[in-house]
Amino acid sequence: MVLTNFPHSQATPFDLSAYLIERKQQVETALEQAIAVVYPERIYESMRYSLMAGGKRLRPILCLATAELVGGTIEMAMPTACALEMVHTMSLIHDDLPAMDNDDFRRGKPTNHKAYGEDIAILAGDALLAYAFEFIATQTQQVPADRLLRVIAHLGKAAGAAGLVGGQVVDLESEGKSEVGVETLNFIHLHKTAALLESSVVSGAMLAGAQQSDIERLSRYAQHIGLAFQIVDDVLDITSTQEELGKSIGKDMQAQKVTYPSIWGIDESKRQAQKLVEDAKQELQVFGDRRRPLAALADYITARTH
Amino acid sequence: MVLTNFPHSQATPFDLSAYLIERKQQVETALEQAIAVVYPERIYESMRYSLMAGGKRLRPILCLATAELVGGTIEMAMPTACALEMVHTMSLIHDDLPAMDNDDFRRGKPTNHKAYGEDIAILAGDALLAYAFEFIATQTQQVPADRLLRVIAHLGKAAGAAGLVGGQVVDLESEGKSEVGVETLNFIHLHKTAALLESSVVSGAMLAGAQQSDIERLSRYAQHIGLAFQIVDDVLDITSTQEELGKSIGKDMQAQKVTYPSIWGIDESKRQAQKLVEDAKQELQVFGDRRRPLAALADYITARTH
Repeated sequence: MVLTNFPHSQATPFDLSAYLIERKQQVETALEQAIAVVYPERIYESMRYSLMAGGKRLRPILCLATAELVGGTIEMAMPTACALEMVHTMSLIHDDLPAMDNDDFRRGKPTNHKAYGEDIAILAGDALLAYAFEFIATQTQQVPADRLLRVIAHLGKAAGAAGLVGGQVVDLESEGKSEVGVETLNFIHLHKTAALLESSVVSGAMLAGAQQSDIERLSRYAQHIGLAFQIVDDVLDITSTQEELGKSIGKDMQAQKVTYPSIWGIDESKRQAQKLVEDAKQELQVFGDRRRPLAALADYITARTH
Repeated sequence: MVLTNFPHSQATPFDLSAYLIERKQQVETALEQAIAVVYPERIYESMRYSLMAGGKRLRPILCLATAELVGGTIEMAMPTACALEMVHTMSLIHDDLPAMDNDDFRRGKPTNHKAYGEDIAILAGDALLAYAFEFIATQTQQVPADRLLRVIAHLGKAAGAAGLVGGQVVDLESEGKSEVGVETLNFIHLHKTAALLESSVVSGAMLAGAQQSDIERLSRYAQHIGLAFQIVDDVLDITSTQEELGKSIGKDMQAQKVTYPSIWGIDESKRQAQKLVEDAKQELQVFGDRRRPLAALADYITARTH
């Protein structure tokens, strides 16, 4: 249980653990209802197989939390929250394909193409991506149409060549190259990881009608935690391998992949991640007590150990 | 040059050939400007490679023509017209992949994965699909936001499991099966081909603010020509092979693929296609002289010989 105190607040400590459990349950329920299995069943089963495979549901939760921060409701943000998870799931399915990272397992289960075949896996990703936009456009209640268009535009950018796809392309191009610098590493993770986290936060803000200056603050918050998230991931790849397997080098280093720790070392990487989290939380100051879920989520990112 | 006379109209014959050349040029210009090549260049080049590879631009032209039919302008429909071509191009890139139809050439050029590799081809398709929705949301001028949301929802459905993807899944499942009936064949082509043609027509109508009864008429028109298009394709696969290669069987029959001619025979297939085109044109009667481009396009579909 992670408890976060705010020294200048009179409120009771914020119970992030309970918050995450509750929100995750709400998201799971909405996702469960989002896709019905009809003819041809195999494609809908394949979409659901990966969409309902668990995970932290961090993107939907960030979207809901930001909508509430700005004064909106969970209800107005839930369809977009589900769409964000559909886009995230699409990127996992396609990244796991033999032509990409060629992974056979994800979250302890066979990857989509291992369970359904490559052809269905490609199509399930396509279908989830297309459905994400349809879902926002048809399922969102009580949000003006012009706000929804901004959300759709932002999500489209985050999912495409200027976001997820662009990050994956540079990641693929960087494989096996030792001269990759921190700028390239930042590009990869700002696009491959941070772009969709940022879209989660910004879309929540847009749905609730946030003013532009707040949207920009929240965008910076999300980009900071997105990079911090990746740095912590890189560090954990080394340290958790050391502890769990008794080996001195991790998966990334074996794959000769340039990572933050391989450039900065472990201690400096941890310091950089911590600084990014502090910068992220600084952006939230103006929101008063309402900032607590997003602030606690930022702490959670560097505090996690697996 | 295809000239179509309308017996009850005082207007001069409609010059479809000149019309198609002009519209195609306008669409090519808009597509050319739609995607800039920036870092990482390879993904944008790959997207452009397939998007600018030619073709009849039938979907964009149907969208523009329907917008004008209903009293709208080319300008208000052009971003959606481009988005339709992006979705169509995505489906071609992914269908050509080794895990799907495994085609090395399209329109006389290497397929996207042959030119850029499978990983980039998968990502280029994803990026085009995401960009299609972003493009409609950000580039459309002078159309109310609620109409754009309807267009986005319709396109999402046409591109996903309830449209293109669903049709491709049933097509893949039917390969090598001899007991495929006309209902399954209709399902495949109503989804794989007709859904996006229908979305082209219906989105043009929606953008221009058509009333619901007209949208339904135009939807039926598009589904009829979509099926007719496929029947003619199947017939041409046999007859053009006979003429051009001196062989008595075509590609589909060699691949043991069930087609309309394999169920109905060539003459009955031609009759069915002709009837669908007549039914399609019947739906246009209420629009008076404005129906001429769409009516001529319907005739063009059965008149084509390659």
